[in-house]
Amino acid sequence: MLEKTTRVNYLFDFYQSLLTKKQRNYMSLYYLDDFSLGEIAEEYDVSRQAVYDNIKRTETMLEDYESKLHLFEKFQERQEIIQKLKLCYNNQQLDREAINELMDALEKLD
Amino acid sequence: MLEKTTRVNYLFDFYQSLLTKKQRNYMSLYYLDDFSLGEIAEEYDVSRQAVYDNIKRTETMLEDYESKLHLFEKFQERQEIIQKLKLCYNNQQLDREAINELMDALEKLD
Repeated sequence: MLEKTTRVNYLFDFYQSLLTKKQRNYMSLYYLDDFSLGEIAEEYDVSRQAVYDNIKRTETMLEDYESKLHLFEKFQERQEIIQKLKLCYNNQQLDREAINELMDALEKLD
Repeated sequence: MLEKTTRVNYLFDFYQSLLTKKQRNYMSLYYLDDFSLGEIAEEYDVSRQAVYDNIKRTETMLEDYESKLHLFEKFQERQEIIQKLKLCYNNQQLDREAINELMDALEKLD
């Protein structure tokens, strides 16, 4: 069975504009609206296997895009730095050097 | 004539992993190493027109990826906020509210 993971949700979010309309529809129903494979098959009047194959292929494409563009990975890196920055800034002992380093690190990420 | 623009350089930087090896080679020689079309044609033993067509098609692909993924646009948005944040933080009148708003804005960008 396919696993409805958070990772796929993120990858779908980052790369959906590169998918075909059909791929987007299936993925959206399956991952966002929590339809079953059978329900999607019925909706589109195709076999359950066809839906399964399409979704599996799409997941492979998403991982392939991620291995090339790293958008999810870079997003996580940025979020981590921003959280540190907020923590550093909002706890009272303001460490100017640490904060400047964090801002520089953020600036250098593309 | 092709124009060797900063924009294409940025787009190439963001999306080169999605291009073919040949596309990357031509683009890299033309935009990064400042070869002429004629020099690339000679290097690869193809016509100048073939190099020109390949580079033009590649530029169209890069713009197409940018219209879908907006990586360059988002990069510029982030850089702008980071510059404001640095300015705000390093000029002495610390405006906590403005700084927190900038950090929140950064966090919300994907």
